Amino acid sequence: MRLIPRDVKFFELFAELSGNLTEGAKLLRTILADPRDLAMRVNQVQAIEHKGDKATHAIITKLNQTFITPFDREDIHRLASSLDDVLDFVNSAALRLVMYKILTPPPVSAELAGIIVLQCEELAKGVSLLEKNGKVMEHCEEVNRLEDMADNVSRRAIADLFENEKDPIQLIKLKELYEVLEYATDKAEDAANVLEAIVLKSS
Amino acid sequence: MRLIPRDVKFFELFAELSGNLTEGAKLLRTILADPRDLAMRVNQVQAIEHKGDKATHAIITKLNQTFITPFDREDIHRLASSLDDVLDFVNSAALRLVMYKILTPPPVSAELAGIIVLQCEELAKGVSLLEKNGKVMEHCEEVNRLEDMADNVSRRAIADLFENEKDPIQLIKLKELYEVLEYATDKAEDAANVLEAIVLKSS
Amino acid sequence: MRLIPRDVKFFELFAELSGNLTEGAKLLRTILADPRDLAMRVNQVQAIEHKGDKATHAIITKLNQTFITPFDREDIHRLASSLDDVLDFVNSAALRLVMYKILTPPPVSAELAGIIVLQCEELAKGVSLLEKNGKVMEHCEEVNRLEDMADNVSRRAIADLFENEKDPIQLIKLKELYEVLEYATDKAEDAANVLEAIVLKSS
Repeated sequence: MRLIPRDVKFFELFAELSGNLTEGAKLLRTILADPRDLAMRVNQVQAIEHKGDKATHAIITKLNQTFITPFDREDIHRLASSLDDVLDFVNSAALRLVMYKILTPPPVSAELAGIIVLQCEELAKGVSLLEKNGKVMEHCEEVNRLEDMADNVSRRAIADLFENEKDPIQLIKLKELYEVLEYATDKAEDAANVLEAIVLKSS
Repeated sequence: MRLIPRDVKFFELFAELSGNLTEGAKLLRTILADPRDLAMRVNQVQAIEHKGDKATHAIITKLNQTFITPFDREDIHRLASSLDDVLDFVNSAALRLVMYKILTPPPVSAELAGIIVLQCEELAKGVSLLEKNGKVMEHCEEVNRLEDMADNVSRRAIADLFENEKDPIQLIKLKELYEVLEYATDKAEDAANVLEAIVLKSS
Repeated sequence: MRLIPRDVKFFELFAELSGNLTEGAKLLRTILADPRDLAMRVNQVQAIEHKGDKATHAIITKLNQTFITPFDREDIHRLASSLDDVLDFVNSAALRLVMYKILTPPPVSAELAGIIVLQCEELAKGVSLLEKNGKVMEHCEEVNRLEDMADNVSRRAIADLFENEKDPIQLIKLKELYEVLEYATDKAEDAANVLEAIVLKSS
């Protein structure tokens, strides 16, 4: 029978994961606001994403080897996966700058990345309060409010693009950049929903 | 220990959810067939979507606070989520008319919305028969048949677009409209598959 | 009480599923390398996909009617679904050749399909070793390594497209072909991750 090993510290692992995610989101925001040294800094985002991949894999491996977990197994799995998805889209946005040679990203893209940063900070707070059963819900609600805001910002940005951008290839590039940023905020909302489920089940 | 509260009526909540979804799909079909008062009616779709969001959230919250449920917890969660996804894509199709200024949607888009309406009606019937353990499966099979039909219709519509539409920006707009409508039918199929799983497990 | 019927052979069903998938991937690779008799051979891929759909449906139906399974129910469900998703994207890539009239697919598309074939072969080996609890993990790691490779190949191909393809409609067609091929490799990675989870849980 597999029992929970003394060294499996899910809370610490999640703190690490959400800290790493916030770091990646902040770097993306910096790049979008000022795209100097683009290639070098996009590599840094990718390194953060690789680190996140490994941390997520470590959580899931430990989860599968552990018989007793502090929470519902499926929820731990989902929380780790959705945090990893946010970072994937953060990395994907950074990569598009290089792939599509977007040398002067429009200000609205940095605005969207700023919303992602705020969401990551709320998620990190929510995760840190899980162990002490603190006020997690408020942070989840804030993540959802921010997702709604990002939705409106990206919708307006895409409508503007169709209104003003006459070069179809440029339109394709920027539309995808906005969409990828918006997907990241959706995944942050997914993570908040899992956090909420964990709290409700344990209350 | 959390016991099932007397007032948790999952069946009624699902009836409400699928009724609201059908209403949204019908309104979308009407708009695509005759796009008068576009902005006002798209707002109505969005109001229906917000109502659906709240109802889905209510189901999931009750689910997480409830110890005994009539069905597998994961299945209830998945059913609510997939019905919500259908409505999300219905709303997303309506929003694209405004964002992309599609003032005369092609007839095939109303045809696709008509298939979504039929699927929603089948899902509503299937959901209403769950409690009495009635002939749910027939309705699930019909939803899947309709998805197959929508697949063919949208594939032909997109092939036609690449054949005839020479303006790339117009092509991008309409291709996405068709794709979003087709995603809605995929999500309806997902919901039907969950319904089927619920019936099989309880038989 | 539902007990596991003697005739439910999950291992055999999965062997069938992964064999069928490999066949589909190989046919796609052949078509992309030499697109003769396109319409006829795309129909063959679609027939393989329909066969896979039925086999997946059969596994899930048996799963829902079975009380005791060799593995975690959710994992069996996820494994069947993710293998089915790989085949869906294989089929989707083939269909795009017809829908978009891509008569001379670029060599890089056959290269991507070749990576999918390798992944399917690794998945088939992994699945076949499940019953004897063999060295499944090595094959999972290889699937993940191949996904990483496909990621790089498709990213470079899309960057090249934006660099060299000046016709926006042609760019849209080929970009989507590469993306659909890359999604197939993502889904193969998902399947490998489920396999890994199954092994970890049972060790």
